Amino acid sequence: MIPKDPVQVVEVGPRDGLQNLNDYVETEKKISLIRRLADSGLKEIEVGSFVHPKAIPQFRDMKEVVDGVMGLEGVRLTALVPNLKGAQNAFQSGIRRIIFVFSISRSHNLNNVRRTPEESLEELKKIKELSSSYPEAEIRVDLATTFGCPFEIKVRKDDVLDYIERVKELGIREMTLCDTVGFGNPRQVTDITTTSMQSFPEITFGAHFHDTRGLGLANALAAYESGIRSFDSSIAGLGGCPFAPGASGNVATEDMVFMFNEMGVETGVDLDRLIGVSRYLSDILPDVNLTSALSRAGLPGGGGAVSQ
Amino acid sequence: MIPKDPVQVVEVGPRDGLQNLNDYVETEKKISLIRRLADSGLKEIEVGSFVHPKAIPQFRDMKEVVDGVMGLEGVRLTALVPNLKGAQNAFQSGIRRIIFVFSISRSHNLNNVRRTPEESLEELKKIKELSSSYPEAEIRVDLATTFGCPFEIKVRKDDVLDYIERVKELGIREMTLCDTVGFGNPRQVTDITTTSMQSFPEITFGAHFHDTRGLGLANALAAYESGIRSFDSSIAGLGGCPFAPGASGNVATEDMVFMFNEMGVETGVDLDRLIGVSRYLSDILPDVNLTSALSRAGLPGGGGAVSQ
Repeated sequence: MIPKDPVQVVEVGPRDGLQNLNDYVETEKKISLIRRLADSGLKEIEVGSFVHPKAIPQFRDMKEVVDGVMGLEGVRLTALVPNLKGAQNAFQSGIRRIIFVFSISRSHNLNNVRRTPEESLEELKKIKELSSSYPEAEIRVDLATTFGCPFEIKVRKDDVLDYIERVKELGIREMTLCDTVGFGNPRQVTDITTTSMQSFPEITFGAHFHDTRGLGLANALAAYESGIRSFDSSIAGLGGCPFAPGASGNVATEDMVFMFNEMGVETGVDLDRLIGVSRYLSDILPDVNLTSALSRAGLPGGGGAVSQ
Repeated sequence: MIPKDPVQVVEVGPRDGLQNLNDYVETEKKISLIRRLADSGLKEIEVGSFVHPKAIPQFRDMKEVVDGVMGLEGVRLTALVPNLKGAQNAFQSGIRRIIFVFSISRSHNLNNVRRTPEESLEELKKIKELSSSYPEAEIRVDLATTFGCPFEIKVRKDDVLDYIERVKELGIREMTLCDTVGFGNPRQVTDITTTSMQSFPEITFGAHFHDTRGLGLANALAAYESGIRSFDSSIAGLGGCPFAPGASGNVATEDMVFMFNEMGVETGVDLDRLIGVSRYLSDILPDVNLTSALSRAGLPGGGGAVSQ
């Protein structure tokens, strides 16, 4: 039988969603989006990415965004960092929980951050050392392309386990298994999440799925059944990976929350408020195709449809 | 662990998909669609609905359609019938496997076929008697709104079990549990499919899910894990229920086949050919919003995207 333990839904829309947009979203709108997400009950929000403005101009106002949301009560604010410089900027901005990302797939990591996975691990080591200057610092590592790669297609489970081991050796205790381009399937998800949790009981694993080929929620269900209790998702299904051809569509936060709510699994999120945030997004981003099923169909009983 | 038994994918697009279209699809195109679906390896195809042409004008050419596809090798051709007259016409056309549908929800059945569920059962009794004149006749019963109703919202599990019992008493041995409007969730699906199979081991159950709120494939996964081995789906995600407000989108056959293929579960369907049929549909129905994820994203590795 399916378990009933509560889950944490980690909102990545302000980072994974916005990073793909061609149009710049004004600082005030980013701040408003994050505040609304927090108001809906989300307890962890990735507010953006500390990258060079030339790489992703969308995040050139990271400092102002962090200033605008710092101190939100009961919410862990996180930021993605691809390198030491990003981590320095993140810590200096006041962020204390950083997400370091690298890809299990060598080709994808070279495309995404212009480093081999080994070079990313070297960078992570330096970030870990840096973090010792910040007593409350936390580092979570996102293992991108864990379930498949747009260049290499298949990713070996042994490589995943090997990189988990190497990240663990650096003293990291939280990792997220990421299906960066929506290639995963429920059996593979069951296999990799179960093996990872059994092999590394000292590590807390989360999961991050894309709905590119329609399997996002089925994969989340499989991961939940395997024991995963933390799930990334993006409001309105916004996002994807800019360096992954064909990839689009994170699992939509409202669809994920809807699924768990309907199953009687606590998320702590107010779905009506969350749908309100989705509506706000469609107001401020009228040209963007928002992909959540719930925003199209509404809640059972008629509430909630954002458009059509 | 997730099982590995093969599944049968039952194609309902020519019926559940086309019934919602305002535009009439010419007989030759319907025939071509069904032939292409059979060519892709689908072994059971619902070719349409024997209803009064005033109720659903789309199916006014049922006899010609059946004439055009009769005798396709290795394929079971089925037709939906809502009443005795439809069953008579279906048998006379040469169809030997008919799908009788009624809704567990009284309100939905009244809206859908203008009968109470009890009156539908009376009609089913007459159809069963009629079928004795056709030695090879088979009847499958679709239990609509098993997982929720757009009017009554919740449907009681006891009502579902009660109607299964009453259909069984008429000598029917195949039933499909239908989430007519996409209200089901994986826990409920696990509960109802498991209880139904345990309570009625002599009945073969199939399942029919809609992706209205994004849970179609997650629900199919839950049903598969519970032991269901036959799944309805509609090519390109075409369809919904014309009498159910807000409902749209059957689970897309290519997405369902993709999920099972990727999980190593045999479907007997050639996914490349199936994507070709999806492409054909988008050619003959340029104005219809086809919703399969696979037609948008393509297969991992780049193949298969129908549009964009």
